[in-house]
Amino acid sequence: MFENKEGRVELSQIGEFGLIDHLTEHIEIHNPETLKGVGDDAAVISTKLKTLVSTDMLVEGVHFDLAYMPLKHLGYKAVVVNISDIYAMNGTPKQFLCGIALSSRFPLEAVEELYAGMIMACNKYKVDFVGGDTTSSQSGLIISGTAIGEAEESKIAYRSGAKVNDLVCVSGDLGAAYAGLQILAREKQIFLENPNVQPDLEGKDYVLERQLKPEARQDIIALFAKMKVIPTSMIDISDGLSSELLHLCKQSKVGVAVYEDKLPIDPLTYDIGTELNIDPTTMALNGGEDYELLFTISQTDFDKIKGKEEIHIIGHITDESSGKMMVSRGGHAVDLKAQGWNALMN
Amino acid sequence: MFENKEGRVELSQIGEFGLIDHLTEHIEIHNPETLKGVGDDAAVISTKLKTLVSTDMLVEGVHFDLAYMPLKHLGYKAVVVNISDIYAMNGTPKQFLCGIALSSRFPLEAVEELYAGMIMACNKYKVDFVGGDTTSSQSGLIISGTAIGEAEESKIAYRSGAKVNDLVCVSGDLGAAYAGLQILAREKQIFLENPNVQPDLEGKDYVLERQLKPEARQDIIALFAKMKVIPTSMIDISDGLSSELLHLCKQSKVGVAVYEDKLPIDPLTYDIGTELNIDPTTMALNGGEDYELLFTISQTDFDKIKGKEEIHIIGHITDESSGKMMVSRGGHAVDLKAQGWNALMN
Repeated sequence: MFENKEGRVELSQIGEFGLIDHLTEHIEIHNPETLKGVGDDAAVISTKLKTLVSTDMLVEGVHFDLAYMPLKHLGYKAVVVNISDIYAMNGTPKQFLCGIALSSRFPLEAVEELYAGMIMACNKYKVDFVGGDTTSSQSGLIISGTAIGEAEESKIAYRSGAKVNDLVCVSGDLGAAYAGLQILAREKQIFLENPNVQPDLEGKDYVLERQLKPEARQDIIALFAKMKVIPTSMIDISDGLSSELLHLCKQSKVGVAVYEDKLPIDPLTYDIGTELNIDPTTMALNGGEDYELLFTISQTDFDKIKGKEEIHIIGHITDESSGKMMVSRGGHAVDLKAQGWNALMN
Repeated sequence: MFENKEGRVELSQIGEFGLIDHLTEHIEIHNPETLKGVGDDAAVISTKLKTLVSTDMLVEGVHFDLAYMPLKHLGYKAVVVNISDIYAMNGTPKQFLCGIALSSRFPLEAVEELYAGMIMACNKYKVDFVGGDTTSSQSGLIISGTAIGEAEESKIAYRSGAKVNDLVCVSGDLGAAYAGLQILAREKQIFLENPNVQPDLEGKDYVLERQLKPEARQDIIALFAKMKVIPTSMIDISDGLSSELLHLCKQSKVGVAVYEDKLPIDPLTYDIGTELNIDPTTMALNGGEDYELLFTISQTDFDKIKGKEEIHIIGHITDESSGKMMVSRGGHAVDLKAQGWNALMN
């Protein structure tokens, strides 16, 4: 992708420390809690609240394919997938650290793109880029992000707090990132078979953006604060709704019933499912990478969230012995299974 | 290394979530500050002090060679290199998170060994293992660690605080980890040429342990607290003394003069240097991976640290215009250069 580019600057010419200086010079600090960002052995953070920390890796060939993932988008996504975990605790992300391992096939310009994407996301979400590690890899590109955030202890939403009769809700819509991935994979295959065929991505913008440039649901957390709702449990949807529902149920020691006809699926996702012969419900349940929030609320909070366009009630919590079920459009109860994309199956 | 092992359990048999449950079931929590460890979207931490965060990656083929690095040692080292950064701020590490990317050539037992090493180090240093991410990789093994610690704001030692006339000190001895690496590389080469030759590692225990199972200088931080010394600046020696001195000088806007005859070099390191025809001073200056502490103290603190066996005064801080110098045994001043192992040069 970057080979034979004229005027390319080799990473080995500037070295690790020169590279870090170069890449980090345009970083802005947004939060007074960040006492010291990049440039020392560790970042220094001040908070009066509780600190939240999460880490996630993106691995070339497993989580992304550089044939269709622009590096700037990849950098953006690396920030989003990490801060999404902080929102999923009902917290506010404040800092981000990034470890990057990359091979010498990447020129300086490629790493600049990656950083530009990370810094763009940090600026958008008012998160401070406070440190990292850059090293070589003998093969692919690996990005390891760490997000740090804060929350009032009484407002933290764990996976373990769901109670029987709580309402089960999701933000946004599901399956679109997976639909986008299928379109990209199809066009890559066509290109490999005949490089003269132009990719046909027209009208697919929404699902492509959901795959290539996902956003984290900062707005939902802000809505909770405004409406004075504290979810009884919450998780972000990275591996697919089905898998995340099972996590919530396991940790909360409860069962769940969700309704197929309540699953929020965008019409474009639906159409692509039909076009590619993939059941849209399967995409919503097992697609993954939606980075939407799955949460439960007490029924007494129903009035506060009803009618909110970005929140969909898809079912309710049951007792543990009732199992984890989806009620199909035909009225049949089917067991939920974690068929989500399992990164270790690759 | 693990191929064709009878009875091996494939990672794909138990899946990502089964693996995480299995690996994390024996984790102990040591610190009351850790409110929530593994098992949610993020760990939750409480501290009244300032929070320190650092991240470091270990990449197969760049930072380690599984031909001679046992996985348990590698896990141990992954924790040590990260918490060393927290000590280098004059802080106390409290939590550790780990992202692991590994290919399916590793069976379950291999990941168990890696975790056993990480948990062993966490138990030794009373650090809580609070989270991570496990994913597949298409090629090598990559370990990305994040250490979190705490410190009183007034006691944090930045790289930027060194003042003219401060004493320059290092803990322990230098170059031994590099000497150990050279011995391991030599024996691997001999083995590859003739697999019937047994490796000759006799009498080399000290340098091998420095390479394969380094320790972080918790004891030096404890000594600072006991002696009521706050280093004016500090950094840990991961890339070699020379490179770290240049970092301190750059950030403190000062110069430095260190003395070749003051560099602490273990006799075994010295002997191996002679045997392998590598200048022991070069090993001490540029070897890297010592994980010793390089720090500066005010001259008024001299009486508090003098005679401490594990602390060596190797020089003093000068004004910036005097440059960054090593005075050789022959009395010549030579410029310090960052010839340290530069991970991007590979």
